[in-house]
Amino acid sequence: MKIARFATAEVSDPRYGILDGDELVVLTGDPMFHGYDTTGERVSLADARILAPVIPRSKVICVGMNYAAHAKEMGHDGLKNPLIFLKPNTAVVGPGDPIILPPVEGRIVHEGELAIVIGSVAKRVKRDDWQSVVFGYTIANDVSARDVMFADGQWARAKGYDTFCPLGPYIETDIDPTNLEIETFVDGELRRKGNTADLVFGIPELIEFISDVWTLLPGDVILTGTPDGLGGFLDGQTVEIQIEGLGRLSNPAKNRDDRVDA
Amino acid sequence: MKIARFATAEVSDPRYGILDGDELVVLTGDPMFHGYDTTGERVSLADARILAPVIPRSKVICVGMNYAAHAKEMGHDGLKNPLIFLKPNTAVVGPGDPIILPPVEGRIVHEGELAIVIGSVAKRVKRDDWQSVVFGYTIANDVSARDVMFADGQWARAKGYDTFCPLGPYIETDIDPTNLEIETFVDGELRRKGNTADLVFGIPELIEFISDVWTLLPGDVILTGTPDGLGGFLDGQTVEIQIEGLGRLSNPAKNRDDRVDA
Repeated sequence: MKIARFATAEVSDPRYGILDGDELVVLTGDPMFHGYDTTGERVSLADARILAPVIPRSKVICVGMNYAAHAKEMGHDGLKNPLIFLKPNTAVVGPGDPIILPPVEGRIVHEGELAIVIGSVAKRVKRDDWQSVVFGYTIANDVSARDVMFADGQWARAKGYDTFCPLGPYIETDIDPTNLEIETFVDGELRRKGNTADLVFGIPELIEFISDVWTLLPGDVILTGTPDGLGGFLDGQTVEIQIEGLGRLSNPAKNRDDRVDA
Repeated sequence: MKIARFATAEVSDPRYGILDGDELVVLTGDPMFHGYDTTGERVSLADARILAPVIPRSKVICVGMNYAAHAKEMGHDGLKNPLIFLKPNTAVVGPGDPIILPPVEGRIVHEGELAIVIGSVAKRVKRDDWQSVVFGYTIANDVSARDVMFADGQWARAKGYDTFCPLGPYIETDIDPTNLEIETFVDGELRRKGNTADLVFGIPELIEFISDVWTLLPGDVILTGTPDGLGGFLDGQTVEIQIEGLGRLSNPAKNRDDRVDA
C-alpha cells in the first residue's frame, strides 16, 4: 500500500490518502496514529499537491558511513556500531519543494537514502522484532554542506539547514527493503548508484541499536545512509532520487537570496 | 513571571500555571501558543507535580564550547562561530525525574546550562531583535556520556540518550540573562560554577546565528553552553543545578537495569 500526504486547492490542511490508480482514497486522520479508516471521499491525483509524507514530531535520525564504499571515500573503515546523528524536523520538505542553498562555502551535496518511517513507540527493540515498529519506507535526500561538516566537526548544522531533508513522494508499507536499487540523478544524469543490499548495518540492527539509545515515536524517520558517489548540485539544477518500488523524489535547487555562487 | 507545567493526582494531563506564592494560577492552554488566559482555577503547589516546562515540538539546540575556560579544557580555542548540535526531544525530563545511566563505557557528566525557551516562529532574526523571539529562560542539564562523544565523533548519541536533558523547574519570563551565576552540585557539594557574563557568543548572537540556519518554533529550547569544571556522577547520586533567579533543577541518577558499574 502506498500512502501519500497531500493538500488540495479546496482543503489546504494536510490529509492522508491511499494511492488507488490515479486517485487517493482519503483517510480520516494520520494513519500512524489513527489507522486506516476512510472518509468515503476520493481525490484525483491531478488535483492533489503531494507533501512530505511525514513531519516527525520527534526525530529525523541519520546513519553515517553505512555503505562500505562510501565510508572509504569519507576516510573511515570498520565502524564497530552505527554512527547516528540528527536532523531537525524543520529541515523536512516534500516532493517538488525547492532545496534552498544557503550562503556557505563549499559544495552542497546530495545523499540519496532509503528512509524508514516508524509506526509505534519503540524502546529497546530486539533485532528479531524490528518489523513490529516499522510503518513503511520512503525516499530521503540527506542534503549536506560539505565544508560546514568539516569546519564544525558536528554535522547538525551542515545537514540541518531548512529544506535539507526532502522526503517522499509517499510511504510504501509493503516492500522488502533488503535489495533495492538507489539512483541519484542531477538534471536527468545518473550521478550516484547503490543497493540497500550493501548496507553495513541492516535495518534490524539499526532499529535495535537506535531504539536502545532513543525512544522512537510514531512518525520518526531513520535515514539509513548513502552509497558512494559524492556530488554537488547548484542553483537551477534538479536532484532526483529513485528507489525501486518507492518512486522518485524530485527537488529543484535554488540559491537563497543572500547566496552568491563563485 | 514564573510559569510551570504540572500535573495533579486528579488531572494527569499536563497543564500550565503561573506561580503565585504557594499556588499556581491555572492557564487555559500552552502560553507559548495560547497566551495567558486563566481558567479561574488555582492549584496548591503542594498538590502539583512539576513537569519539564516544555517538550519541544521541534528542537533542543545545544551550543558547544561557549565558555572560554570550558573550550580550553576540551582542547578548543577561538571558534569563529557558535558550534551547534541537537538533542532529541525524547531526552527531555523534568525536575525530580531520574537520569537513567545507560550501559556505556566511561564517565557520564553533568553540564549545567542556561536554557532559552523560544516563543515564536523565528527565521533570520537580526541580533538587535533577539528579545522578540524569546519566551523565557529555564535551567538545563546537558548530560553527556564522555567516551561516547569521542568514540562517535558526532555527539547526538552521547548527549541524546533518554533522560539526558533535564529541564526546569519553571520558565522565568522576566529576567536579564546576561549576568547569572550557574552552580552545579552533586549530593549537595559544589562541583562547577560559572556566570552567563562569560558566554563567548551571547544570546543575541546565538539567536541571530541559529535562526539563520534553522527556523525556530515556539517551544524550541537553546542550551547556551556549560562553564568549565567537567565532572561525573553515579547511580544513587543527585545532580542539582542552580541559576540565579531561575531556581534549582534537581535530578537523581539511576543505573539502567543493564548497567554494571566498574
